[in-house]
Amino acid sequence: MASFDDYFAPRSIAIVGASDDPQRIGGRPLAHMLNQRFEGAVYPVNARREKVQGVRSYPSLLDIEGDLDFVLVAVPAKDVSDVIQQAIAKKARTALILSAGFAETGPEGAAMQAEIASAARLSGLRIIGPNCLGLFNSAKRFFPTFTSTIDLAAPKPGGIAVASQSGAYGSHIYMVSQQRGLGISYWMTTGNEADLHVAELIQLLAEHDGVHTIMAYAESIKDGQRFADALETARQNRKPVIVMKVGRSAVGAEAANTHTGSLAGEDAVYSAVIRQHGAFRVRTTEEMLDIACACRPRIYPSGKRLGIVTISGGAGVLMSDAASDHGLEVPPMPEGAQARMKAVLPFASPRNPVDVTAQFFNDLTLVPRFTRAMLGEGGYDGLIGFWTSVAGSPVLGVPLLAHLRETMADYPGRLFLQSILADDEMRERYEEAGFPCFEDPSRAVAAMAALMHFGAEFAAGRAEIPALPPPAGIVPGAIPEHAAKAILAKAGLPMVEDILAASPEAAAEAAARIGGAVAMKIVSPDILHKTEAGGVMLGVSGAAGAREAFGRLMENAARHAPGARIEGVLVSPMVQGGIECILGAKTDPVFGPVILFGLGGIFTELLNDVALRRAPFGEETARAMIGELKGKGILEGKRGRPPADLDALARAISQLSLFAEANAETVESVEMNPLLALPSGCLALDALIVTRNAG
Amino acid sequence: MASFDDYFAPRSIAIVGASDDPQRIGGRPLAHMLNQRFEGAVYPVNARREKVQGVRSYPSLLDIEGDLDFVLVAVPAKDVSDVIQQAIAKKARTALILSAGFAETGPEGAAMQAEIASAARLSGLRIIGPNCLGLFNSAKRFFPTFTSTIDLAAPKPGGIAVASQSGAYGSHIYMVSQQRGLGISYWMTTGNEADLHVAELIQLLAEHDGVHTIMAYAESIKDGQRFADALETARQNRKPVIVMKVGRSAVGAEAANTHTGSLAGEDAVYSAVIRQHGAFRVRTTEEMLDIACACRPRIYPSGKRLGIVTISGGAGVLMSDAASDHGLEVPPMPEGAQARMKAVLPFASPRNPVDVTAQFFNDLTLVPRFTRAMLGEGGYDGLIGFWTSVAGSPVLGVPLLAHLRETMADYPGRLFLQSILADDEMRERYEEAGFPCFEDPSRAVAAMAALMHFGAEFAAGRAEIPALPPPAGIVPGAIPEHAAKAILAKAGLPMVEDILAASPEAAAEAAARIGGAVAMKIVSPDILHKTEAGGVMLGVSGAAGAREAFGRLMENAARHAPGARIEGVLVSPMVQGGIECILGAKTDPVFGPVILFGLGGIFTELLNDVALRRAPFGEETARAMIGELKGKGILEGKRGRPPADLDALARAISQLSLFAEANAETVESVEMNPLLALPSGCLALDALIVTRNAG
Repeated sequence: MASFDDYFAPRSIAIVGASDDPQRIGGRPLAHMLNQRFEGAVYPVNARREKVQGVRSYPSLLDIEGDLDFVLVAVPAKDVSDVIQQAIAKKARTALILSAGFAETGPEGAAMQAEIASAARLSGLRIIGPNCLGLFNSAKRFFPTFTSTIDLAAPKPGGIAVASQSGAYGSHIYMVSQQRGLGISYWMTTGNEADLHVAELIQLLAEHDGVHTIMAYAESIKDGQRFADALETARQNRKPVIVMKVGRSAVGAEAANTHTGSLAGEDAVYSAVIRQHGAFRVRTTEEMLDIACACRPRIYPSGKRLGIVTISGGAGVLMSDAASDHGLEVPPMPEGAQARMKAVLPFASPRNPVDVTAQFFNDLTLVPRFTRAMLGEGGYDGLIGFWTSVAGSPVLGVPLLAHLRETMADYPGRLFLQSILADDEMRERYEEAGFPCFEDPSRAVAAMAALMHFGAEFAAGRAEIPALPPPAGIVPGAIPEHAAKAILAKAGLPMVEDILAASPEAAAEAAARIGGAVAMKIVSPDILHKTEAGGVMLGVSGAAGAREAFGRLMENAARHAPGARIEGVLVSPMVQGGIECILGAKTDPVFGPVILFGLGGIFTELLNDVALRRAPFGEETARAMIGELKGKGILEGKRGRPPADLDALARAISQLSLFAEANAETVESVEMNPLLALPSGCLALDALIVTRNAG
Repeated sequence: MASFDDYFAPRSIAIVGASDDPQRIGGRPLAHMLNQRFEGAVYPVNARREKVQGVRSYPSLLDIEGDLDFVLVAVPAKDVSDVIQQAIAKKARTALILSAGFAETGPEGAAMQAEIASAARLSGLRIIGPNCLGLFNSAKRFFPTFTSTIDLAAPKPGGIAVASQSGAYGSHIYMVSQQRGLGISYWMTTGNEADLHVAELIQLLAEHDGVHTIMAYAESIKDGQRFADALETARQNRKPVIVMKVGRSAVGAEAANTHTGSLAGEDAVYSAVIRQHGAFRVRTTEEMLDIACACRPRIYPSGKRLGIVTISGGAGVLMSDAASDHGLEVPPMPEGAQARMKAVLPFASPRNPVDVTAQFFNDLTLVPRFTRAMLGEGGYDGLIGFWTSVAGSPVLGVPLLAHLRETMADYPGRLFLQSILADDEMRERYEEAGFPCFEDPSRAVAAMAALMHFGAEFAAGRAEIPALPPPAGIVPGAIPEHAAKAILAKAGLPMVEDILAASPEAAAEAAARIGGAVAMKIVSPDILHKTEAGGVMLGVSGAAGAREAFGRLMENAARHAPGARIEGVLVSPMVQGGIECILGAKTDPVFGPVILFGLGGIFTELLNDVALRRAPFGEETARAMIGELKGKGILEGKRGRPPADLDALARAISQLSLFAEANAETVESVEMNPLLALPSGCLALDALIVTRNAG
């Protein structure tokens, strides 16, 4: 794997297709490099000129004397392959291909792209692009990009990195970040991703000391495992990764497909994986920027208790609503503290939201006094202050900030976001002092919720994953129900006991062994719809009953499906009660085995109330899956039923995830439906395993 | 009712409690009036000074010669009553009370407030406040307010009006509006609402020609009927009303209650009423401002077909996702048009989103050509363009705007929102040309969705309401089940037929008349839990069976509830099949009779999947209620069942709304549970009517 510096901090760069016109694709990167005073060597390559933008030009890469680290390619698509060969000959470490006209245009372009990728793979040269806008490292003043946004707003270094598949949208993110005063040190657009893809880039950024927050934009992820690993590295290094994955909706996915020509896997799986590995998925750029802004102080509260201090009761109500939307708590101040605050200011609402009222205008010290009470006695994990245009006023804004600073010096680990209306200069004063600012109070709450998510995830770390069982040795092909049940039972999953009986006598014996009423089902690879074929009998009782039922099932089979291969009859106990659930595993094209769990019937079919996680995982994660179902109340014993055994359910869910991962090579999907959640234990009544190469 | 001018355009104003210090509550309104050059007469009242801020001062209101329209009161709470008496004596039309210390402080303040309200009511003097921040009319340069925000950002008139209960939050809305370049003509904060309340204010604004868009902020509505009427007036006059009602969540409602001391009614009812009467409810200030901004061109598309034109494929995907979130359609361009666009620009994505790609930099005419195709051949109801910082560039922003203007001159009724990054000046150029601008593309989509909501509501107008039936003559007190059923059946609601039998013979006769199996239930005001008392028998068949069952029910009643008054036994048919629904009416403290409809069981109990509307309404509205249920698929025939008779359901829902309204004086609530939705018709099996004065 290439190092961070190979991409972001080479000592030398050649620009092939360098243009004298700083507005052209081949001219702009050179102009950036010159304007921004890159300290390494810069070699324009242009056979038709002696100098380009005043710098000595070379006829080809091979004419450059000395070592060459980085090659920027801005020539027509048909000429790119030759340039790559030269770069390999020059032992360059990295080639960045800006040129378009590859996989995004159709099969011919895709073939050219594959050829380049293959040449690079063989040689060890790493490739960024093609069809991208390039990258920059503002700390090293390295700007191999043709985005024009750098001219509009000069980059300032900071701890933020942007990893974007889209060039134009990556530029948009950069521009908005600049307006918000966010310092972006590293920025890269990966385009068609012939070689380097966004997951590997996130991994590099997560490992790099100069990065503290990562903003990622993706339309599809090429390597789910690396993406998950990169997110785990970031979690371990306490770096928030804010992910915008577009193509959430059917119409959006179609547009993404038209745009990039690649299928993206199921969107709900992306959401699950991003959350599972500690990152945060956003829907809008604004949300992404808000969260990045809130990350500036690098304080990530691990609890969800929010304190609100406001000069407007109305804003306090509004923010309480927003907190509720985001699952945050707004617990009241202790009674004693409320009484003391009331003694200071009789008209105040000291409960939480704490309203300092317009009295604040007469006595700014109310703010530090009340804030100290909230931090000390209230013990909130994070605070939001609503000061609106007061903080923007030249008279009050500065002393308010001084009070906030002084207070927070005694509470260095607490996050305090501010909702203010102020000009850029005042806002930057607040932000440099460690107080991220938001114009809209609802957005401050949303950002706080995201930081609390990161705090909880950083504190929890990677969930422990139990050891995988050995593969079950499944052979591709159709697996009969009883065989599937046996495989899953052996893997520790709670399957109903059933016995395959090949004769009336065997059925009678099985029924006697099971005891009580039994269900009997014909077993035949040729009979798919058993009920319609008269192949199911329920509530059969006693040995005699079973013997007779066997005969009847055989007769029905002979009548409904003459010539069907019959393997026997499955005898199983009738299970009473329980709540019907569905537990399954499927193979996502990006992320591999994914486990899904939900309540049966309308919940899965109509309401899409299903929890997903990438396999494998332990019981803690499984419990979280149960907890995120809308219908979880049913399992918890609402609606008059006894509560289900959630431990047993979690065990089964985790167990299936281990099984699915261990058998990922051969198993395409598993379905346990229904899985009955019982007051004690759980039990699957039916199971289906589809193998990878089965029709 | 007072006129608009009484509040917003008086010819003279007295300021009681006028201060020489322009920073004080009594000083600031006078300073505003002088600075802004109000053209009417201004009379400071201050007994201790000859002049206030250089203007002749009067010892009391009574010393002012000539007529007086408007009195601003900025004296301590205890002195307000005297001032009001003087204002009445001077025959002023309006008094605005800024002073705090009334109902918000407790019972004593509430009593003072009630006294003032009563004096005003008797005399015809209208009162704004107390405990408010005042109002302004920037067109008339009338500024009776002590908000300091006017000094920070000078108001510019426009067609927008703000009606806010909160003073501080009203000021915040004003400040953000100024930053967005929105012209606010009329702004009022209503505070404690001793007399004038926000619903009446919205009515005045909806009627006033100078207003085209209304932003309202409320914590509670005092008069639900007037609120609904005001929204209907606005709809009729094609004026969007954007409502922020806070206290949505439990914690928010509690904060609101602490803040204003008034209970707000059920939040879900507010949402239903706001939507039902054509207005739009927002959750955040930003959303409110975005929508107001999008209203500037006063074009409200009546369809939901969105066209997207972009220079970034990624942004196109993102906006498609957002459109899907908001229920908009993003239909593709016709095939022929796509082919023609491809011929112009082979790399373009001409489907919708239409991606003009970076080629746009070389040829700006792509924009008008593609946009014309979208408007002409695509026929979209609204367009959004994504140009990011390109539109902010001095080189490209101006010619791009010229192209957009020229194109849209041929499509004057179409709304075209823009997502651009630009400085305020450039943004204002776009907005003045009729192109509302949004930095974040997702917010542009959200605003478009709101305008499409208004467009549809304006086009539809007020839904027709059938004539109310005469009141059913219900007498307060407990109503037995069979009596409730009879009342509702008479009102045209589909009730199961049942017969009250007082003897075994009568029961036998009833069973014979009904035919088939019947259900039998004991009827007694003293037996509430019939099943537990052995008071229900199902599936009774034949006259003999009914005779026997009658005896058994009587025995059970005598054993389980000795001494209970028995009115007889209810005999009703056993109904097979159907989907269990709940249909009910309840009395909302703000809005009066409200109808709720949902699916039974988990849908209502766990998922809160219930549709609400304010009564009365017709079948069209009832159909919309069915359509907004998450579980509506069950009624539409998913899950293998035959579809329910939605016409019959809608008829029943509307019918109950008419009944509830006609009997609002006496009926507190009605519950028909279950109401069986059948393939043909629907039928309530049980009914409960609770009267207003019943225990």
